[in-house]
Amino acid sequence: MNIRSLVFLGLISVPYLLKAQETKLVQYVKPLIGTAKMGHTFPGATVPFGAVQLSPDTDTLSYAVNGRYNGDVYKYCAGYQYDDPTIVGFSHTHFSGTGHSDLGDIQIMPTQGKVQLNPGTADRPQDGYRSPYSHANERAEANYYSVLLDKHQIKAELTTTTRVGLHRYTFKESNASHLIVDLTAGIYNYEGKNVWTVVKVLNDSTLVGYRQTNGWSRTRTVYFAIKTSKAFKNYGAKYEDGKSVYNGFWRKFDQQNNFPDLAAHNIKLHLDFDTKEQEAILLKVALSPVSMKNALANMEAEAPDWNFDGYVKQGQNAWEKELHKIEAEMLNKEDLVNFYTAMYHASLMPTVYMDSNGEYKGLDQEVHRAEGFTNYTSFSLWDTFRAFHPLLNLINPSRNADIVASMMAHYNQSVLKMLPIWSHYANDNWCMSGYHSVSVIVDAILKGVYKGDAEAALAACVQTANTRQYEGIGAYIDKGYVPADVSGTSVSNTLEYAYDDWCIAQLAKKLGKEDIYTTFSKRAESWKSLYDSTIGFMRPKNSAGKFQEKFDVLDTHGQGFIEGNSWNYSLYVPHQPTEMMALMGGKKRFESYLDSLFTMELPDKYFEHTEDITRDGIIGNYVHGNEPSHHVAYLYNITKSPWKTQARVRQIIRNQYHNGHAGLGGNDDCGQMSAWYLFTALGFYPVAPGEDNYWIGSPLVKSAKVNLENGRSLSIVARNQSEKNVYVKSVSLNGRKLADFLLPYSSIINGGELIFEMSNKPNKQ
Amino acid sequence: MNIRSLVFLGLISVPYLLKAQETKLVQYVKPLIGTAKMGHTFPGATVPFGAVQLSPDTDTLSYAVNGRYNGDVYKYCAGYQYDDPTIVGFSHTHFSGTGHSDLGDIQIMPTQGKVQLNPGTADRPQDGYRSPYSHANERAEANYYSVLLDKHQIKAELTTTTRVGLHRYTFKESNASHLIVDLTAGIYNYEGKNVWTVVKVLNDSTLVGYRQTNGWSRTRTVYFAIKTSKAFKNYGAKYEDGKSVYNGFWRKFDQQNNFPDLAAHNIKLHLDFDTKEQEAILLKVALSPVSMKNALANMEAEAPDWNFDGYVKQGQNAWEKELHKIEAEMLNKEDLVNFYTAMYHASLMPTVYMDSNGEYKGLDQEVHRAEGFTNYTSFSLWDTFRAFHPLLNLINPSRNADIVASMMAHYNQSVLKMLPIWSHYANDNWCMSGYHSVSVIVDAILKGVYKGDAEAALAACVQTANTRQYEGIGAYIDKGYVPADVSGTSVSNTLEYAYDDWCIAQLAKKLGKEDIYTTFSKRAESWKSLYDSTIGFMRPKNSAGKFQEKFDVLDTHGQGFIEGNSWNYSLYVPHQPTEMMALMGGKKRFESYLDSLFTMELPDKYFEHTEDITRDGIIGNYVHGNEPSHHVAYLYNITKSPWKTQARVRQIIRNQYHNGHAGLGGNDDCGQMSAWYLFTALGFYPVAPGEDNYWIGSPLVKSAKVNLENGRSLSIVARNQSEKNVYVKSVSLNGRKLADFLLPYSSIINGGELIFEMSNKPNKQ
Repeated sequence: MNIRSLVFLGLISVPYLLKAQETKLVQYVKPLIGTAKMGHTFPGATVPFGAVQLSPDTDTLSYAVNGRYNGDVYKYCAGYQYDDPTIVGFSHTHFSGTGHSDLGDIQIMPTQGKVQLNPGTADRPQDGYRSPYSHANERAEANYYSVLLDKHQIKAELTTTTRVGLHRYTFKESNASHLIVDLTAGIYNYEGKNVWTVVKVLNDSTLVGYRQTNGWSRTRTVYFAIKTSKAFKNYGAKYEDGKSVYNGFWRKFDQQNNFPDLAAHNIKLHLDFDTKEQEAILLKVALSPVSMKNALANMEAEAPDWNFDGYVKQGQNAWEKELHKIEAEMLNKEDLVNFYTAMYHASLMPTVYMDSNGEYKGLDQEVHRAEGFTNYTSFSLWDTFRAFHPLLNLINPSRNADIVASMMAHYNQSVLKMLPIWSHYANDNWCMSGYHSVSVIVDAILKGVYKGDAEAALAACVQTANTRQYEGIGAYIDKGYVPADVSGTSVSNTLEYAYDDWCIAQLAKKLGKEDIYTTFSKRAESWKSLYDSTIGFMRPKNSAGKFQEKFDVLDTHGQGFIEGNSWNYSLYVPHQPTEMMALMGGKKRFESYLDSLFTMELPDKYFEHTEDITRDGIIGNYVHGNEPSHHVAYLYNITKSPWKTQARVRQIIRNQYHNGHAGLGGNDDCGQMSAWYLFTALGFYPVAPGEDNYWIGSPLVKSAKVNLENGRSLSIVARNQSEKNVYVKSVSLNGRKLADFLLPYSSIINGGELIFEMSNKPNKQ
Repeated sequence: MNIRSLVFLGLISVPYLLKAQETKLVQYVKPLIGTAKMGHTFPGATVPFGAVQLSPDTDTLSYAVNGRYNGDVYKYCAGYQYDDPTIVGFSHTHFSGTGHSDLGDIQIMPTQGKVQLNPGTADRPQDGYRSPYSHANERAEANYYSVLLDKHQIKAELTTTTRVGLHRYTFKESNASHLIVDLTAGIYNYEGKNVWTVVKVLNDSTLVGYRQTNGWSRTRTVYFAIKTSKAFKNYGAKYEDGKSVYNGFWRKFDQQNNFPDLAAHNIKLHLDFDTKEQEAILLKVALSPVSMKNALANMEAEAPDWNFDGYVKQGQNAWEKELHKIEAEMLNKEDLVNFYTAMYHASLMPTVYMDSNGEYKGLDQEVHRAEGFTNYTSFSLWDTFRAFHPLLNLINPSRNADIVASMMAHYNQSVLKMLPIWSHYANDNWCMSGYHSVSVIVDAILKGVYKGDAEAALAACVQTANTRQYEGIGAYIDKGYVPADVSGTSVSNTLEYAYDDWCIAQLAKKLGKEDIYTTFSKRAESWKSLYDSTIGFMRPKNSAGKFQEKFDVLDTHGQGFIEGNSWNYSLYVPHQPTEMMALMGGKKRFESYLDSLFTMELPDKYFEHTEDITRDGIIGNYVHGNEPSHHVAYLYNITKSPWKTQARVRQIIRNQYHNGHAGLGGNDDCGQMSAWYLFTALGFYPVAPGEDNYWIGSPLVKSAKVNLENGRSLSIVARNQSEKNVYVKSVSLNGRKLADFLLPYSSIINGGELIFEMSNKPNKQ
């Protein structure tokens, strides 16, 4: 008797079948989710946490026009917008879901006919190398992307290994087929962003080089090596280089044609081929943070042959393995797609930043060798400390340990003696507020995930928290809050420093550092300084101790916050929620505050000021598309109304996560939005990373098996789960009821069985 | 009885006394010689072939004004012009005697009072950090330079080790003493020349960073480490960086003051100190071609302490050792100064380009480790193949072997598969004509100096000579000459390729490569293609084989030559002089050609067109200040009128080399002018490097002991030497008369006694 028969006989249910297909979880990954509007995800090919994200770019607008920020460029944080009609090229590095951007390195585009080295515009693609395309001819899977480029009917296919992008272009017959290598292209480009570019053509099918840029990362160099499966018959270059005054050597060579030793601010290259009808030309493009020779070595190590389909399969197997860390049984296929695409989006960043020989470029701009860990980069910590890193602690602890090791390496290389704030590619861009490496490190140590030198880690946290010259820290230490006249985001800084300081105190306590514990426990209460009891909100205060007079609790600009208004941000005391509740007037008043947040109407003028989200990204005045409120729906647990948490999280998960290309209500933020989804779908959430407890919400899964790294598994079952049964009647772990709706990490990390009894009625006991 | 008594008694002569002072040859070095007008030497401190040339710069004019070459900048090839009234600062890298330029890296200037980060102008030094100075308060010695900076009465002193510049600044009392570190400063600067600059302040007395430039060297990075002997109390920076559009992180820190993590296109820094009256603050500035950490390691290896005077002495001892390679007895002290300053100038370049750990940046922009050799850079080969490298083969063979090894490394790293043309700092600027690495390599192998793989070296020479896309080589191979329509310097290229090809043939013969010998022996005769017998001069010919119609044998522009007119350049067939003489009409006509060259009057309009020389740099139409004629005065030996050679070389040596700051009639050209002096002063000259013979001229020394590297010595005695006795009556080696006036290298390299009998009458036998 086979499975089909069992189904037919009604002996096993369809959801079981979905579980049975566990070797094909990768089918549920839809990389196109979030590629429209505000998701800022990319549809291209990559492997889990891979250094290469090989993806189509639909435009390369300038970051600045006439020296001023060009708001339109914001759409192109990941290079691709679903609604765009043309593709400019395929580049090798992309952030996933960010709200500011960079990268888009080493852009390749196949063309035919007359060589065109400018991209042209979306409305006049014929003026350049870009091509119209149709979504009907586009396919995006985990580690595989293909599209038909309509202009010359060239089929483009992309796949990757960790450090190598592989391209397969299938051409029509022509004696003028080309591959354009445009080193001037990039995401968030502007004139002068390219600091220097180099190309060296080693032979008729190999080139190496690098692209050095400034911008969000001030000093960033991406080294590359390119091999073509077929020798190019000819090649040529164009320099865009008005700034290189000396060019005495130009007369020595014809540097436009077949000149192999190129160096200029901006290089564009074309490789020329004869192609037969439907002839495929393949490319391997390896990256390195260190050198061209390391890029070549990475290629040799990871992609020695031309078996394109083999690399697709190898990467999809890697994805399958990654996705299998949670085997979820959902209510329907759409939820499976949401769930596994969230798993996918939460496994893209940080990215490997290290060559196959262990070398990487450090924050000090020196070459280092990672000893005993894999070095990672692109830490969007203001986002990811909340749920993303806690998720890794659950399903990917050794990877998170490596991430902490990478942060410690960053710290040791930092001339400022600071842990990363928002770091990428051997730089820190210091974006957003707080110093949330501290949260990640403390949580990883307290949970036994990071096994490195805990005292050194504590010292790094303390040193970072004492960087007086960094955004108001000096005044914060002296006065107990960041004054409004010192920082434009004084309240969010104060609240977040206070939380981070609490984390430091917890680690100090664990290590028996009484003085640090005392100091930072006191600092952890700094949030109280900015609570204005006369209005019931957090409010900016100047150095003289006076609250800011002109103040609008709904506005997100000029009110002392970043990506949030006071309504949302006043609730950001994850480490001392009951004290916050007390200060805010006690349980009843606090619950009514929460109720209002979700039910009030946010006037349009305030919505328009809210960054990074669509109208769908908010519920009432609750902004899910930005991170500061991610814990908020769980706060009904302390008002002893957990059923309100349960209803709200189910509402949010239904409201904010869809299968469509516009399926994300705000930037995915390097996996944080997806990690929120995953925790919430499993039925619990890390309200305050650094403490052992998850807070119980309402699961969306019917069941899930969390395959832990230690070989054990946590089984989650939501009995009586349905679309309507959003309420948790009871929840028990290994047969013991969780009366306080708290789930310790320590109680599940060695496996167990977590059973929810679901109901369509709130359990008000 | 002591020496004084012997002199008094007339038992020994004064010249003997000069010899007795042989432990202080360094006293005869006057680095200021050549610093006025066209010499383009620098007066600052350095050790022999040192990587650091720490020297005052008197101006930093822009290479281009409004996008056009600024002729005034030409004076500043070495950063310093003796007649200038102000000093801008002290930078760490300088070419010696070049006619195009670059470098001037990491400029330091001590100031007091209000911080000024702009240099100001020579006529208004008060507007900037520059200072007036007086030559009365200036002292320049080998490896020691000092000057009083009048503006704030700061005494500046400089010395070096191979990779470290040491500064000692003695201040007046002030609470506002400063050291300005201006990374925007540089030689042959222009807006956009700085590609990127980085500074990281490690602590209150240590900073590291780098300056990355384009220009003559397209991709050049100088890494540095700076330590101060006293902690700075404060520091600050100014960015000049209109091109960095993104600056979101600026609001996070006060980046103007005490911000240690600087990166921008252009950084200027001030370090602030309190100083007591006459307090000295010392600096150590170490350079590296590879990394900041290597710069720090170089400092630790070479200059671990603050014993400034000790480093002066150590470097002067190194100079003493270098100068002792020839112990010369001269007619007078002025000649000793000329001789040892020539020795000095011929021991500055090429420079060490390798860290103390053996790492260096290769032409391929990768980091390499020099295995078994010291890596050198800055090869001005069109100049130095003539006499400079042959001089090294005599007195510095192991250094020349390392230079050849460096050239071979360059070749192996070359994507063009070419040996260096004019290379510096991991780049080739392909300046001037020919491929004269070939001459240096062949000469070094045939003379037994380079003991590396001779077959690989021959292959590199052949491959370079077959680089068809390089300046007419393809047409040269096909047609036997470079056509005028292919290259603007078609005749000089043809003549020099022919000589270089002869060199290749000689090496091929030695290695038994018959086919290469045949091919290149034929190519060596290419000079014949461009001899126009109707006018008796070399003349450009177009691709169709027709001589250029409009042709002026006196002009140096547009006539197919570089740095020479046809009158001078037509004689450039050093490898086949007798065949040249025959083609040019035989002995009598050829001698009259030579006579005319030296005696004719060059009209002003032609002189004005002649590059790189002063009016003093020519004799008749013989241009000594440029190199193509350096062998010409020796050519009377083949007309069997050696007395004319003798008279002319003595005339030239007297006419062209003086003790004054304007003592050089043209660019010293990285030691070539000085090497000509030294050979000529010793009485012989390498007319055709690659052949074993030197040609006899007329010595200027009274005697000289050449201390050979193998421990033997060559003793040269000019009996009856005097100012008037310029003629060689006879010359003998080890008692055997040199009837043909040829002196084989092989006959002297194991020592011997070369005796000239001098006379005031020509010996016409």
